[in-house]
Amino acid sequence: MEIDLNADVGESFGQWTLGDDEAILDVVTSANVACGFHAGDPLTLLTTCRYAASRGVSVGAQVSYNDLAGFGRRFIDVPADVLAAEVVYQLGALAGVARAAGTRVAYIKPHGALYNAVVHHEAQATAVVEAVLAYDDELTVLGLPGSILLEAAEAAGLPVVAEAFADRAYTREGRLVPRTEPGAVIHDADEVAARVVRIVREGRVTSVDGHDVGVGAASVCIHGDTPGAQVLARRVRSALEAAGVAIRPFIR
Amino acid sequence: MEIDLNADVGESFGQWTLGDDEAILDVVTSANVACGFHAGDPLTLLTTCRYAASRGVSVGAQVSYNDLAGFGRRFIDVPADVLAAEVVYQLGALAGVARAAGTRVAYIKPHGALYNAVVHHEAQATAVVEAVLAYDDELTVLGLPGSILLEAAEAAGLPVVAEAFADRAYTREGRLVPRTEPGAVIHDADEVAARVVRIVREGRVTSVDGHDVGVGAASVCIHGDTPGAQVLARRVRSALEAAGVAIRPFIR
Amino acid sequence: MEIDLNADVGESFGQWTLGDDEAILDVVTSANVACGFHAGDPLTLLTTCRYAASRGVSVGAQVSYNDLAGFGRRFIDVPADVLAAEVVYQLGALAGVARAAGTRVAYIKPHGALYNAVVHHEAQATAVVEAVLAYDDELTVLGLPGSILLEAAEAAGLPVVAEAFADRAYTREGRLVPRTEPGAVIHDADEVAARVVRIVREGRVTSVDGHDVGVGAASVCIHGDTPGAQVLARRVRSALEAAGVAIRPFIR
Amino acid sequence: MEIDLNADVGESFGQWTLGDDEAILDVVTSANVACGFHAGDPLTLLTTCRYAASRGVSVGAQVSYNDLAGFGRRFIDVPADVLAAEVVYQLGALAGVARAAGTRVAYIKPHGALYNAVVHHEAQATAVVEAVLAYDDELTVLGLPGSILLEAAEAAGLPVVAEAFADRAYTREGRLVPRTEPGAVIHDADEVAARVVRIVREGRVTSVDGHDVGVGAASVCIHGDTPGAQVLARRVRSALEAAGVAIRPFIR
Repeated sequence: MEIDLNADVGESFGQWTLGDDEAILDVVTSANVACGFHAGDPLTLLTTCRYAASRGVSVGAQVSYNDLAGFGRRFIDVPADVLAAEVVYQLGALAGVARAAGTRVAYIKPHGALYNAVVHHEAQATAVVEAVLAYDDELTVLGLPGSILLEAAEAAGLPVVAEAFADRAYTREGRLVPRTEPGAVIHDADEVAARVVRIVREGRVTSVDGHDVGVGAASVCIHGDTPGAQVLARRVRSALEAAGVAIRPFIR
Repeated sequence: MEIDLNADVGESFGQWTLGDDEAILDVVTSANVACGFHAGDPLTLLTTCRYAASRGVSVGAQVSYNDLAGFGRRFIDVPADVLAAEVVYQLGALAGVARAAGTRVAYIKPHGALYNAVVHHEAQATAVVEAVLAYDDELTVLGLPGSILLEAAEAAGLPVVAEAFADRAYTREGRLVPRTEPGAVIHDADEVAARVVRIVREGRVTSVDGHDVGVGAASVCIHGDTPGAQVLARRVRSALEAAGVAIRPFIR
Repeated sequence: MEIDLNADVGESFGQWTLGDDEAILDVVTSANVACGFHAGDPLTLLTTCRYAASRGVSVGAQVSYNDLAGFGRRFIDVPADVLAAEVVYQLGALAGVARAAGTRVAYIKPHGALYNAVVHHEAQATAVVEAVLAYDDELTVLGLPGSILLEAAEAAGLPVVAEAFADRAYTREGRLVPRTEPGAVIHDADEVAARVVRIVREGRVTSVDGHDVGVGAASVCIHGDTPGAQVLARRVRSALEAAGVAIRPFIR
Repeated sequence: MEIDLNADVGESFGQWTLGDDEAILDVVTSANVACGFHAGDPLTLLTTCRYAASRGVSVGAQVSYNDLAGFGRRFIDVPADVLAAEVVYQLGALAGVARAAGTRVAYIKPHGALYNAVVHHEAQATAVVEAVLAYDDELTVLGLPGSILLEAAEAAGLPVVAEAFADRAYTREGRLVPRTEPGAVIHDADEVAARVVRIVREGRVTSVDGHDVGVGAASVCIHGDTPGAQVLARRVRSALEAAGVAIRPFIR
């Protein structure tokens, strides 16, 4: 039994730092590295990729809307052809940085509002898939199970990996409870760790309203930019290891 | 006898267009494509690379300071490690776009104020060379003969190509006359064409003060963003062809 | 009988120029000057305000989403408090530039996707109104009749001015035909001029499906960024003058 | 005997926070608020101005080069007319925000690399002065004694205020020791406090090589963006108060 742990890193920008990337990269096996559109200046990306390479952590391209001021967290109604070109640009930019750091981009994972949009927004989901196909038709797409993104990527013949969320509550239908609703985020570290172990071992989680629902995932997303994130990440990792689960990148 | 003709393209941005890229790409053999830092949104870059690929024109990365507002024409005293990472990021970004367009980045040529800086600014010239080495140690560097950039690139074992300028006056020492001085730019199309033919055939040009100076170059830069630029470019190409010079990219 | 003519200006950015601002400012009486968020570098704004001042043209703040890459033409789901602060910032910036140019900001008019959003998006429309109230509760709001923006502004006690569009088709309900539908834009200059004269003299226009609808407006918007825009603008102005209509700014 | 204490605030940007502005604004009497060009999104600026207003702290415009990626800390060789327009734009933007927050911009102080440039760069110093004159010829200029900026501002009839630096070493000539040299920054809080008290009471400081030099200043700059900055700021304030010095803004 094995699982991958992924987290967002490389989200500092110039004078501003965000998160403790080294601490997070010591725990996870896949690093969603920002690509400069919502965060991540080139030197930050280079330093992050170098550290990921030194720890054997896979590098993924955390592509985003072009929105530094909003940290990529605001939906932008960008036309499909523009979005596809922006995704290609970001994939290439991070690939260049990864190459200079002695590693490579192993997968793509949309960030923030784009992540949420491609769950249901067909034109934008298709644009992301077309960008990946044009850039590298063997690149893995990491995303939400049931999203249009993963379905379209799979239909196009791209490798896909579904992820679960360590600290997020699920609905009875197996969807994430929106952040605007009460109980959407689980803060208790022991509870988070126990849920992740059950997701990995049984493929099941208890929904916000008490039902048992199936959650298939080959990777679990751990948030790294909140205070105490590293502590939570280590707790999850320890609990998995204690349960006999191997922590390995989904791509090696 | 053969020569390469290069010009800047891909310098539109969003709603704003600059130059007539298709007309220029019908004349030159090497395209210095912007990389998004001084100009060039991703869709413009993709469209430009596709057209270059369709015409058999080589694509080069026209890397720049991060300065959209100044079009990369203002010296920025950026630290060497930041500049090197920015160059890697731009090389990768354009390489991704070129790959999606069915071509590749064949060379690098700094733009604007960075081009001028790496003639004499050792730290910045070295940063560019180190970026190229880290990204791809077989990438050709296109630049000004005698510049620190070309000398450092050559010393590092990188392939280098020297260029001459079609419409710029030279000093007795074989340097470019600064744009701020009178006579720096030659506007007469026939004179420009005749000078280029002589540079290619004899490796010589008449300096601004009437001396005969040597100018070695495997590529000639033609400006594409001025009114009448395409007319001038076609005149130069016709004159070269009439003189029996083959127009070919320096990299195929 | 009198009317104001307004047009967008100041939309160049750095090396990139857009439109012929002086030609447009020779025709209109109110200038919607960009504020740097979708277009308009500071020197362009200063030059534009100086020319507007020299021609006795009123200056309005053409506020926008923070989106240079998209020219403010893409909806951004920006939170209300962020949007309100962005509007205040833009109002102040243009007011500073106008002051240095010897004039002042007489009104506000949202641009592009924000203009369309505040027709129906209550949170964003309210944010714009709150920004105006906080900045200057005597500032006039120029917008689409029937929009939430104008209704909320009026309810808050702000002066409002409704505008009609010279070259846009109207629905039977007096709304603009969306640009994505056929016949949305009227290209024939004589037809445009005749429609504007009728809007001003009779307050009526023929809808896209042949009905007669009422259109109340104290200002008519003329687009300035399309080829032939200046020609169209002068045709409209001549037709109005020939019909005995005085062309005056709604604010002097 | 009285003195003003000034510090940089409003330097967060979107998702990224920098410094503890409220803690600093509880100590100083003049706030150098960023204007969006090197830091400071509009909502941050609004929140900062509101807090400054609530504490009776004067607001100054901390104008900068247009350089978010470099935090305004890199010299940019920007033409004088562009720089002047950028300064006007920033003054207006912050004035708009200050007005919405119930306060006003009382002075201007250049930031970072621009601060250093206008000490000796005549064209840029003159551009800043011309911008202030065009915007508001009664606005106070805060800067380094002996700088071209202060001299040109004074010659132009603008009110000027000279500042000293709490934690910086001085040369025998009364200049700041460059940060690149050893001993440039004084880290010991007690020593910093004692030096400030002596600067205020005696107008003198001991240079880095042991000489006694005169330092005239009506304001003392305290850095707020370093760890422990608030502690240092409070120590300086306490020492001044203990020495019977009144801490008051230079403009009320």
